[in-house]
Amino acid sequence: MLGIDPGLSRCGYGAVEGGPGRRSRAVAVGVLRTPPSAPVPARLAELQHELRALIAELRPDAVAVERVFFQSNVRTAIGVAQASGLALAEASAAGAVVAEYSPNQVKEAVAGWGGASKEEVERMVRALLGIEAPLRPVDAADAAALALCHLAHAPRLAQLTRAGAR
Amino acid sequence: MLGIDPGLSRCGYGAVEGGPGRRSRAVAVGVLRTPPSAPVPARLAELQHELRALIAELRPDAVAVERVFFQSNVRTAIGVAQASGLALAEASAAGAVVAEYSPNQVKEAVAGWGGASKEEVERMVRALLGIEAPLRPVDAADAAALALCHLAHAPRLAQLTRAGAR
Repeated sequence: MLGIDPGLSRCGYGAVEGGPGRRSRAVAVGVLRTPPSAPVPARLAELQHELRALIAELRPDAVAVERVFFQSNVRTAIGVAQASGLALAEASAAGAVVAEYSPNQVKEAVAGWGGASKEEVERMVRALLGIEAPLRPVDAADAAALALCHLAHAPRLAQLTRAGAR
Repeated sequence: MLGIDPGLSRCGYGAVEGGPGRRSRAVAVGVLRTPPSAPVPARLAELQHELRALIAELRPDAVAVERVFFQSNVRTAIGVAQASGLALAEASAAGAVVAEYSPNQVKEAVAGWGGASKEEVERMVRALLGIEAPLRPVDAADAAALALCHLAHAPRLAQLTRAGAR
């Protein structure tokens, strides 16, 4: 289970193992960065290359990507949307199940309510994964939260699929 | 010289040969489509695959991509931005010079003014390339217009680069 918080300057990733009745465990949590001084096409090509290598290494069965909205911060929204396009394409091309979750869905799943702050989400991610040290930058914690959100939704999704297949 | 008008349902492409003192010639003009009924990640993976194949086949020295803005049509803007991310990444990864132009820059270069209609642009593209049949869908004409826009700008860019290198 891999969570990706897309971004051009910092793209968070968080790979988590877990399932019903088992404690979740962090496999790899961090950020991919591209230099703001480089041209955007070169940064996108670099990010694509690194996302592909990450997915090839971790071989996640599912990838959860944060859904992009344009209500807030139009200035960075284009880069975020471009990065999310790369993440969704790479995950799908690698044969993973791909899910998108809104920031509110992630906060609700991890911290219990959609209005939780970045700090609350980060603390809850560490508590759920048994990590003592702070997760920095916060994009890494957000990506791990996406993976935990998908783990929380996945059993229900699987049931729905089974119910639908009857 | 390859122009790409990014989009998820229809991604226009137009490959044009030309240079100072030579009449421009269309090499390949068309659209890549992905089915609106398919999940977005699968559509992005398919578009990425087709863009890569197109660039590998045409081997353009330069790729011009329409710049994404979010003033208009927020509903489709996310898909357009995601598609543009794929196009920019693929073009850069293939080693091409990558340029982005705004819709107004393209209209100005091809039709003489930034307020030109889609129909005027399409007619001018056909006149410049000596194409008699209408270019449909219009995304294909827009992509060819991007390539012509870059051809118009490229000699000046080359001069600027030479001047800068002195």
